[in-house]
Amino acid sequence: MEKIIYGVAYYYEYLPYDRLQEDIVMMKAAGINTVRIAESTWSTYEKSPGVFDFSSVEYVLDEMEKADIQVIIGTPTYAVPNWLVELDPEVMVYRKGAGRSLYGMRQSMDITNPTYLKYAERIIRKLMEVTAHRKHVIGFQIDNETKAYGTSSKNVQNDFVSYLKEEFDHDLNKLNHEFGLDYWSNRIDSWEQLPDVNGTINGSYGAEFEKFQRLLVDKFLQWQADIVSEYKRDDQFITQNFDFEWRGYSYGVQPEVNHVKAAKAITLAGCDIYHPTQDELTGQEIAFGGDSTRNLKKDNYLVLETQAQGFPAWTPFRNQLRLQAYSHLSSGANAVMYWHWHSIHNSAESYWKGLLSHDFRENDTYNEAKVIGKELAELSPKLVNLQKNNRVALVVSNEALTALKWFPVDFNAAFQSTLTYNDIVRQYYSALYQLNIEVDIVSPDHEGWLDYEILVVPALYAAPDRVYQELEQFVLRGGKLLASFKTAVANEHVKISHDGTPKYLEKVFGMTYNQFTVPTGQVLEGDLFDKTVTVRGFMEYLKVDTAKSLAHYGRSQANPASAITINQYGEGKAAYIACMLDQSDFNQALSTILAQEFDYTLSGYQFPIIVKQGSNDDGNTITYILNYSNQIIEVQSPVSGVSLLSKAVISETQTVQLEPWGLDIIETIK
Amino acid sequence: MEKIIYGVAYYYEYLPYDRLQEDIVMMKAAGINTVRIAESTWSTYEKSPGVFDFSSVEYVLDEMEKADIQVIIGTPTYAVPNWLVELDPEVMVYRKGAGRSLYGMRQSMDITNPTYLKYAERIIRKLMEVTAHRKHVIGFQIDNETKAYGTSSKNVQNDFVSYLKEEFDHDLNKLNHEFGLDYWSNRIDSWEQLPDVNGTINGSYGAEFEKFQRLLVDKFLQWQADIVSEYKRDDQFITQNFDFEWRGYSYGVQPEVNHVKAAKAITLAGCDIYHPTQDELTGQEIAFGGDSTRNLKKDNYLVLETQAQGFPAWTPFRNQLRLQAYSHLSSGANAVMYWHWHSIHNSAESYWKGLLSHDFRENDTYNEAKVIGKELAELSPKLVNLQKNNRVALVVSNEALTALKWFPVDFNAAFQSTLTYNDIVRQYYSALYQLNIEVDIVSPDHEGWLDYEILVVPALYAAPDRVYQELEQFVLRGGKLLASFKTAVANEHVKISHDGTPKYLEKVFGMTYNQFTVPTGQVLEGDLFDKTVTVRGFMEYLKVDTAKSLAHYGRSQANPASAITINQYGEGKAAYIACMLDQSDFNQALSTILAQEFDYTLSGYQFPIIVKQGSNDDGNTITYILNYSNQIIEVQSPVSGVSLLSKAVISETQTVQLEPWGLDIIETIK
Amino acid sequence: MEKIIYGVAYYYEYLPYDRLQEDIVMMKAAGINTVRIAESTWSTYEKSPGVFDFSSVEYVLDEMEKADIQVIIGTPTYAVPNWLVELDPEVMVYRKGAGRSLYGMRQSMDITNPTYLKYAERIIRKLMEVTAHRKHVIGFQIDNETKAYGTSSKNVQNDFVSYLKEEFDHDLNKLNHEFGLDYWSNRIDSWEQLPDVNGTINGSYGAEFEKFQRLLVDKFLQWQADIVSEYKRDDQFITQNFDFEWRGYSYGVQPEVNHVKAAKAITLAGCDIYHPTQDELTGQEIAFGGDSTRNLKKDNYLVLETQAQGFPAWTPFRNQLRLQAYSHLSSGANAVMYWHWHSIHNSAESYWKGLLSHDFRENDTYNEAKVIGKELAELSPKLVNLQKNNRVALVVSNEALTALKWFPVDFNAAFQSTLTYNDIVRQYYSALYQLNIEVDIVSPDHEGWLDYEILVVPALYAAPDRVYQELEQFVLRGGKLLASFKTAVANEHVKISHDGTPKYLEKVFGMTYNQFTVPTGQVLEGDLFDKTVTVRGFMEYLKVDTAKSLAHYGRSQANPASAITINQYGEGKAAYIACMLDQSDFNQALSTILAQEFDYTLSGYQFPIIVKQGSNDDGNTITYILNYSNQIIEVQSPVSGVSLLSKAVISETQTVQLEPWGLDIIETIK
Repeated sequence: MEKIIYGVAYYYEYLPYDRLQEDIVMMKAAGINTVRIAESTWSTYEKSPGVFDFSSVEYVLDEMEKADIQVIIGTPTYAVPNWLVELDPEVMVYRKGAGRSLYGMRQSMDITNPTYLKYAERIIRKLMEVTAHRKHVIGFQIDNETKAYGTSSKNVQNDFVSYLKEEFDHDLNKLNHEFGLDYWSNRIDSWEQLPDVNGTINGSYGAEFEKFQRLLVDKFLQWQADIVSEYKRDDQFITQNFDFEWRGYSYGVQPEVNHVKAAKAITLAGCDIYHPTQDELTGQEIAFGGDSTRNLKKDNYLVLETQAQGFPAWTPFRNQLRLQAYSHLSSGANAVMYWHWHSIHNSAESYWKGLLSHDFRENDTYNEAKVIGKELAELSPKLVNLQKNNRVALVVSNEALTALKWFPVDFNAAFQSTLTYNDIVRQYYSALYQLNIEVDIVSPDHEGWLDYEILVVPALYAAPDRVYQELEQFVLRGGKLLASFKTAVANEHVKISHDGTPKYLEKVFGMTYNQFTVPTGQVLEGDLFDKTVTVRGFMEYLKVDTAKSLAHYGRSQANPASAITINQYGEGKAAYIACMLDQSDFNQALSTILAQEFDYTLSGYQFPIIVKQGSNDDGNTITYILNYSNQIIEVQSPVSGVSLLSKAVISETQTVQLEPWGLDIIETIK
Repeated sequence: MEKIIYGVAYYYEYLPYDRLQEDIVMMKAAGINTVRIAESTWSTYEKSPGVFDFSSVEYVLDEMEKADIQVIIGTPTYAVPNWLVELDPEVMVYRKGAGRSLYGMRQSMDITNPTYLKYAERIIRKLMEVTAHRKHVIGFQIDNETKAYGTSSKNVQNDFVSYLKEEFDHDLNKLNHEFGLDYWSNRIDSWEQLPDVNGTINGSYGAEFEKFQRLLVDKFLQWQADIVSEYKRDDQFITQNFDFEWRGYSYGVQPEVNHVKAAKAITLAGCDIYHPTQDELTGQEIAFGGDSTRNLKKDNYLVLETQAQGFPAWTPFRNQLRLQAYSHLSSGANAVMYWHWHSIHNSAESYWKGLLSHDFRENDTYNEAKVIGKELAELSPKLVNLQKNNRVALVVSNEALTALKWFPVDFNAAFQSTLTYNDIVRQYYSALYQLNIEVDIVSPDHEGWLDYEILVVPALYAAPDRVYQELEQFVLRGGKLLASFKTAVANEHVKISHDGTPKYLEKVFGMTYNQFTVPTGQVLEGDLFDKTVTVRGFMEYLKVDTAKSLAHYGRSQANPASAITINQYGEGKAAYIACMLDQSDFNQALSTILAQEFDYTLSGYQFPIIVKQGSNDDGNTITYILNYSNQIIEVQSPVSGVSLLSKAVISETQTVQLEPWGLDIIETIK
Repeated sequence: MEKIIYGVAYYYEYLPYDRLQEDIVMMKAAGINTVRIAESTWSTYEKSPGVFDFSSVEYVLDEMEKADIQVIIGTPTYAVPNWLVELDPEVMVYRKGAGRSLYGMRQSMDITNPTYLKYAERIIRKLMEVTAHRKHVIGFQIDNETKAYGTSSKNVQNDFVSYLKEEFDHDLNKLNHEFGLDYWSNRIDSWEQLPDVNGTINGSYGAEFEKFQRLLVDKFLQWQADIVSEYKRDDQFITQNFDFEWRGYSYGVQPEVNHVKAAKAITLAGCDIYHPTQDELTGQEIAFGGDSTRNLKKDNYLVLETQAQGFPAWTPFRNQLRLQAYSHLSSGANAVMYWHWHSIHNSAESYWKGLLSHDFRENDTYNEAKVIGKELAELSPKLVNLQKNNRVALVVSNEALTALKWFPVDFNAAFQSTLTYNDIVRQYYSALYQLNIEVDIVSPDHEGWLDYEILVVPALYAAPDRVYQELEQFVLRGGKLLASFKTAVANEHVKISHDGTPKYLEKVFGMTYNQFTVPTGQVLEGDLFDKTVTVRGFMEYLKVDTAKSLAHYGRSQANPASAITINQYGEGKAAYIACMLDQSDFNQALSTILAQEFDYTLSGYQFPIIVKQGSNDDGNTITYILNYSNQIIEVQSPVSGVSLLSKAVISETQTVQLEPWGLDIIETIK
């Protein structure tokens, strides 16, 4: 990519009046160099079946071209016209517990429905005919935040049965045994007897269906990409707007999409990152999204959507919009695009404020964008295409997430739980982030997922045996492995190991366990901590064999057991943390293990100061120093070089002063 | 009306045995002079289709006549017999998300269903034939707490489409544009494409449907009133039992009925007022209901239902039943009727205690009613027909309520909110009440809604442009306007202004804003307060033009902005309060603005002492002094006159002593 | 029974590989002498209709016989194969608000469906043919935790109408009157007009249906027992696994089954008892289950299921598994059987840990079972068949529970409540338990329910008049009665008394009341307490007649009223506690009334020390002293005798030392 994209989603079709010219003037003033258009408005382009009108698209393309603003075209398939549903009511998704959806909401169609696919293909082809040849169209986003939307109608069930036949080599006994269908009389004697998965209580059957639904997403995206590829130029990319678990903001593994597999369909990775601001702006959600998306194509990525103002509670404080933009770049983003340019005056999301408010006038946030736009116009050549070379990877997994949804860690007597897979992932990622350890977020589905010095593995509850065996080999060959409780328990069909846990890894970790509980005040003892540490949420009772115990459970009515262990295995080392801790206690445990057992030297910088590095197209090192606090902070510079913002020459012995929610960027010549 | 009605709802049909004679004896002992009968028991009067038996009605009429007790007849249409549902299953209401209701609950029929209407008309006519000519029948209540009950079946949808065609002059483009249907591909190309409103995410379409449902209520009541009018004498009234939002008690604008429009069908206003008691008895719910209902026909009104004992938690303390009765009268009620005479021994509402408990014996509450009945018998000529002449009005709106349901003020990242329209209305009404500022509650649908010195306008989020223009004229001509945040944002189709907010009123208020947020600890600074005041719930960042800032947001990461402003405009003044506050802080802001900017002199009385006034049929001033506390309180008398309760002569310099939950009533000769 | 059963549920069919031999070795090592098999796995035995394969059952029977381990056979009818649902979709239960269930979950069939019953009968007969003659098969469990599962389909509704015709002598007026159907126009004029009970708001109609559903359970169990009886030998028992209300553990009256009536079908009582452990182990749930189940057949009973490890949060502390086992025996259990032997590797309940964990290896809990097994092998002859002879009974009732579900005690303005029938029962049982007063838990459906010196009756809200009359006779003849608020209010059709409360018992208690409320800080005054006591949850205002007031409500705005009364009536005494209290305050009230008014001498032992007694087959007294705490406790021995555990001779003046979660058992020769 030649320059940093500073952009917005632009919905000409939603405007209360034609103000394209005024908008372009204001965009140019803010350094906006790219707009994303055309997703979401199928019914505007095809008001009735087969009657096409792309005049608004062409008008916007014409004017953007005149203004030298690049355009990304989104295919409008994630929201269908009502006439399509009238042609075939089964276009609407059928969901477990909810039945057939009513028309209205976006992302509520059955992505396997033939009618939908037929008409979607036609509108895509028509749109491509109009747009693909345009000079300023730099790429295509296929669909948007695609998922299977829980589709589980009769025909999806039938396809699932076909899939299972393949998965189990047409061997019913294998299926019965592997899924444990004897339980509660669920055993079947013919494939036709497989009951509607919507009613199942069998976690293996249910989790396999969710995996199948993720495969539907892969298939759908590949199908769109193939169509788009027939039209696009070589210099045009295909991207997709991946999103993350929604926790009131973007964070954690997306349960409904296997990003690694789905990304095979595209040529350039993209994502949504929405995050809290004001006092809650930490940069962590931005970093998580970046560390995940950067690895999908092992390259830079686009932040296709992030908020300017966003939710009412998110209106940014002074300096925050700027800090956010550079936070994305520091993780390797090549694009920061706001959703959206103007706040919408009707319908559903009018609560969500764009870069402009409903009055289209200048506002404090827009004015800050003007500052950013100006800086980026100058610094783009030095900041674009930032390359990372991380020593540490965090290993995540859709399959583990789904398995722990069916079989929660702390499932209680009210048949509820409080601790999800992403909660555990979060404890691990938060520690790494707060300690300024840059990581790649990978999954066992990534090629080269073991090509790191250190692997951090939270709650890898279920995986094919080969994954556990590869982890053993990783340590044997000298790798350093740190895993949490609930790692290596079940196979890929969520069948729990009957031969000891951690499955295949008892020798690697030098310990085993077969009892665990939910703590109510238990504490840790041992040299790892300099104070009393209380266990939270979940704990396994470890019985050490060759491992060294770094911490054990204190005064308790139970028999003695270890809580944190370290073991030398082959050329490598394996640490295991058998319980959940408060974040600060966990940070201490992690940093001590890294420093003392894994020979990893920590930088000493800690949140709210975050330091991020990479090399630019010139091979120079770019160092971001980011201040996620409302205080002025002075820190010693981590590098010598030149500040790209102040132009000052800075040596490693000097301090750098950071404004509230401020930052500096230093270039160090190689 | 000639006398105060002190009455009860009486269900002879529910009695476990015939005790009409004993009941009448006990009623007379308590001064009960009116009963409401016959609503709710259709299946008793028409056990099978066309077979009528009004013997219980006639028996009760006969005996009440002998005992000189007046009767209000309720039409029994709000609970249908099961045989009617068997004739036509579509008599049961079809609701969004719930489908067709099962038979059982009252108020669960489709009020537009032709079968229902046909049979309802017949039972009304039959009942009128039996009752209308009776001497002691003073009036008719048509149906009860009528609503559309969420009806949204296919036929209602069809009628709604017809309504929209009219509303938009058969111009589809106008509809598409005004509702913003391009959004998420909801645009339509023919009226037939309008999707089932039950699935919509379009707030304009959804809010318009709720308005349409309120119109169904107006139509239904007018239809009943027309039938009843064919039979009733001129001296007999037609009323309806309006109720309010249910917040665990009656308070706030009723979302499902536009009282102002619905009241066109009736000749005398009536309402339900249920309210907390014991330590929670404040009189505020009573006053809110009265200040609302009094304005429907610009006359006195009936409290057709209020509790004697009510919910288990509401069993009144000593003196409270009496305080409550006079509270109603002090707002202009001409009737206080308990729901109900006797507690019911079966079915659904047996938890709810009437004036008598299940044992039909005297109890402490009934014994207090005897005191009230005796006093009213004496004082009725002086207390009946109390007239108010308020300088201040509180402006409320169904349309604003519905719009803020679709687009909540503090919509958050979990897609939830905590602050509703009625919460904001409540902050404003509570302040007025606690500061002893008597008000009329009006809506822009009232004729003469601007005929006040001061208008207080909380969160008038959506309204036709003419309303905002009338407010401008109001100030221009010398009116004093005080509005809250979220006033004048959208038009009547919930399309947000694209040309600045407050819409049409930027010059009136002398300020504008285009950013807002949900505060997390922000404080107010400025002369308006003598202490630090924390902002709660919501805040807009005001940019003043000609206005004077009375308070601005303190230390913050955001750019400076005002929070409370005052502006001279034409002959009048306009104040704007851009944020939510704690009630006591708000009371201070309001009272200061009223006193210092609006030249309104406060009486100095404050809750728990409430003073209410009006003039009686003799033109004398009646002053109620009400003590809503469990303490004996002495206050200086607000007027000179004679205590109607103690008969003492009281001068304005004297103190009046009020018992716990006690009161005094002073008549001042004109 | 000849010996204590120490057993497990064993699911050979669920094993990931054949390890029957290894399991038997480990069972023998732990003293396991009985296994329960064959329930839950119908689809394994009949993979397709009419094709039977009991090879796994026979294999297990063969090997258990060789190992001298007894077997209980469970009929596999509580979980159906999917092929059965395909034969007749109406096999799946139809539930109020939920419609027809999807296949998957156990206990989700319609137990009245003819197809289900036909195929269930065949599998039962086939299983009996294979197992009934086997020497080591000691008995049969029919179905498992049987309920009606909310069945309310059209055909069940029809049967219910037939039942009502009988119940009301084909007299519609009687039904209309007794259920109060005039209310809200629910009156009917023909049996055909009875609406679907799923929609009803009539609590009498609804509660009667729930009673009818309980009768379906009785009928279903009798039907199974009759089939099994055709095959079983005289020395083989028929049992059922009754369970209790699930409150996150087993406690309280089971709403869906009338244990007393259902137990008529069986020859030996059995139950599930699952309970908290760790710091929450109190023995109370164990005692409640035992005190209930022991009275079903007036004999010892089987604990057919209790947890070894159970939920993650329940992994027992050291010594707890042993304390739990003896706790069951001390209540009169003849069997302690763990659910289940091995943790399951798939499906739904893999979170639930058996005696063995998923790895089948020894663990701390299993190792403690080995200690228990060894002790029981020795002590069984002295501990088996423990007989109780209690002076006190706690009276509970399904009808009262259901009535208070429809009409909650503290029903509030949000139409919710916090206080259930079982909450009240719990306050009463907890007090008796903590004060070491051994009781039988009986219902008015037990023969001989009045044959006690003292009856404790919490919230007997609804019952046939004969029950209240029998209580009067009980006191008249010299019995001591202690009842709570909400006792004797309604008849068996939940029609509230119109002639005073407590119904029929005003003279017995020497007081009456007709007002009540939910307290908000009210306190009690009077000699009963030595400190200020705050009322919680609910209170009735008692007006004493002949009764003595033991406590009255303190400072209040209400008129004076009593809260706790005692009255001499005939030869007996009757106490009434009109409000809810904190547990410790209630314990004080109860113990004072028992000691001072009812001449009941308390032992002085208090929780966490629990003393339980009975006589064994030799007629000797067996005294258990149980320590439910994590402290070493020394107590004076309640008896002289010989410790069965330490073999020490102990006199009544000596102290006994109990380990944390420890116990002693003393035999006193008669």
